[in-house]
Amino acid sequence: MSVTAAQGFTAAGIAAGIKANGNPDLALVVNNGPRLAAAGVFTSNRVKAAPVHWSEQVLRGGTVSAVVLNSGGANACTGPKGFQDTHATAEKVAATLNDNALGGGEHNAGEIAVASTGLIGVLLPMDKLLPGIETAAAALSEDGGEAAAIAIKTTDTVHKTATVSQDGWTVGGMAKGAGMLAPGLATMLVVLTTDADVDAATLDEALRSATRTTFDRVDSDGCMSTNDTVLLLASGASGQVPARADFADTVRKVCDDLARQLIGDAEGASKDIRIEVVGAATEDDAVEVGRSIARNNLLKCAIHGEDPNWGRVLSAIGTTKAAFDPDRLNVAINGVWVCKNGSVGEDRDLVSMKDREVRITADLSTGGESAVIWANDLTAEYVHENSAYSS
Amino acid sequence: MSVTAAQGFTAAGIAAGIKANGNPDLALVVNNGPRLAAAGVFTSNRVKAAPVHWSEQVLRGGTVSAVVLNSGGANACTGPKGFQDTHATAEKVAATLNDNALGGGEHNAGEIAVASTGLIGVLLPMDKLLPGIETAAAALSEDGGEAAAIAIKTTDTVHKTATVSQDGWTVGGMAKGAGMLAPGLATMLVVLTTDADVDAATLDEALRSATRTTFDRVDSDGCMSTNDTVLLLASGASGQVPARADFADTVRKVCDDLARQLIGDAEGASKDIRIEVVGAATEDDAVEVGRSIARNNLLKCAIHGEDPNWGRVLSAIGTTKAAFDPDRLNVAINGVWVCKNGSVGEDRDLVSMKDREVRITADLSTGGESAVIWANDLTAEYVHENSAYSS
Repeated sequence: MSVTAAQGFTAAGIAAGIKANGNPDLALVVNNGPRLAAAGVFTSNRVKAAPVHWSEQVLRGGTVSAVVLNSGGANACTGPKGFQDTHATAEKVAATLNDNALGGGEHNAGEIAVASTGLIGVLLPMDKLLPGIETAAAALSEDGGEAAAIAIKTTDTVHKTATVSQDGWTVGGMAKGAGMLAPGLATMLVVLTTDADVDAATLDEALRSATRTTFDRVDSDGCMSTNDTVLLLASGASGQVPARADFADTVRKVCDDLARQLIGDAEGASKDIRIEVVGAATEDDAVEVGRSIARNNLLKCAIHGEDPNWGRVLSAIGTTKAAFDPDRLNVAINGVWVCKNGSVGEDRDLVSMKDREVRITADLSTGGESAVIWANDLTAEYVHENSAYSS
Repeated sequence: MSVTAAQGFTAAGIAAGIKANGNPDLALVVNNGPRLAAAGVFTSNRVKAAPVHWSEQVLRGGTVSAVVLNSGGANACTGPKGFQDTHATAEKVAATLNDNALGGGEHNAGEIAVASTGLIGVLLPMDKLLPGIETAAAALSEDGGEAAAIAIKTTDTVHKTATVSQDGWTVGGMAKGAGMLAPGLATMLVVLTTDADVDAATLDEALRSATRTTFDRVDSDGCMSTNDTVLLLASGASGQVPARADFADTVRKVCDDLARQLIGDAEGASKDIRIEVVGAATEDDAVEVGRSIARNNLLKCAIHGEDPNWGRVLSAIGTTKAAFDPDRLNVAINGVWVCKNGSVGEDRDLVSMKDREVRITADLSTGGESAVIWANDLTAEYVHENSAYSS
């Protein structure tokens, strides 16, 4: 159902020819109102792509009438020309929608968000992209959410959508991301839509709260992208005004669902690793420890080999600044406490690691805080996928 | 020449049966004086192996009469029993050397350093190790440096030694380490010896200064070990008292040589990557940026695929707190400035990456400081080596 599950939105996904292989590469999402409220969260990487610079500025106004997204090129590290191209893209979307019966109300470029994904350091083929916007606008429909989700794929093997409805209002969304997945944000493009009647401040609060414990806690390969963008648009078309807490909770559910799908489709992965850190003095400590475990290449290889190598978990914990006593650390792998009090625990032969999901619990034995980080194993396929091709 | 290149030292390397495959696994290095001065640098991992706890305590006294090292087991995360085993090992070395004509002067356990390497979380087979100490003591010789270097190998394909002599005095050493190589320190055991007549304070100053710019700037896989130990022992047997600066410079040269050998033999690596960060505001900034580049799995895969993917360099730089303006970043790969002013530079097709050594230069265009970090590419062989076997 994707971004058109909520009332008030149309979308399209088409092949503009940006990708050499002819696959869909351009998506358009239009908010037909009556509200045009929006919030956004962007990469914390200091090297930001042109569309991130652009969209951050657009989102400052709290109003977005449409989002245009392309795969096949990140438009990152492309200098002033790259930014001009993003600007021209937004102008073209506004002009095209204003000429189009399906375009909804009056659009202006300053309310058009732009997102790009693909290879860094290459200018977009504007001679393909700009005509593609006309094609996409002509294809806009209330059923276009799936096509849009497909058009933003890069190395994703499947497209990712999620929807939660309740009490007459809906939050739906689409996501892409399979590599360069690491917190702050994970590398991804995400567009969420809702027909709830909520203002930009409410959207912002719900989105930041949700991403903090979902997309920000996905770490496939420790590599942070230049293009991460998560947008939440509200049309108000349902006429329903949910309680703030209910709305935030629903947004979190959709984000959690999409984040989990990203990990499930990570490049070359054969295992999804759920790392739960418990007994931490603070949530920050739990997150720091969880990320350190998530990024340990040796552990990620061991998990791939179905080897419950808890020594690598401890060596990863030991690199953090979190509060703990090394002699009180406990580690369980798939429920077996293979490490107790910083030393040998239950028999590691009791651990079965046949399933795709592997659960690691690290108990710092210090306090009552916890956090969950999702990661993947490290495989020869990951190496192949990221060495054989530029991406 | 290894640890017996300097006068006043004997060494041995033997197979004690700690390794199941029967390969050499126990090394002994004895300082016959007249001086017994020593300095040590240890892992900054907060989860430290028993022998690290022991040897840190020994080194506080500034006197080491012998070093015993085993491969085949790290004795890390082994609880009180592991520490007792380390203590018993030192006691056995002291008693055996006191009974042995080649043992030099009077030994006591409090002056015996212990180092271990191998799998974390497994107790050492003391029934093999203790008799092995007698075998090693009986094999001590002034030519034993090579055998000692061979006995500390784990996944190393070659043993590593280095020697520099000048003005009648010598610094020599041996090193092991092929995986879990990351700063602070890289995962390694290193023993350096000298016959220069220098005190413990001079050794400490020279060793810390040398490791800071050599072993601490090697980053094979971002994984920090629990067992890193670098020791420097002085016998004074040459009777020569070098100038402090000359001595420090020579120690640095030997460390640099050994560090370079570690990178050259890193697990599964097909490329050695020399990352030089220039134009940094501070040396700390240069090191932070260098390490971030060194640990970027996507870049490491690209280098493996001989793909000059400078976008991944920029995305790694962007995750740091170093002072820079994204629009003034320059990146050269093997001398070709493929990124200029944060955007597309010279033609990437001009970059040849056929050689094993790949040089990346990242210019932050901010100040005059610089640093060099050495790293490796990420390969399917690394994944295989670290997933198929516990290590």
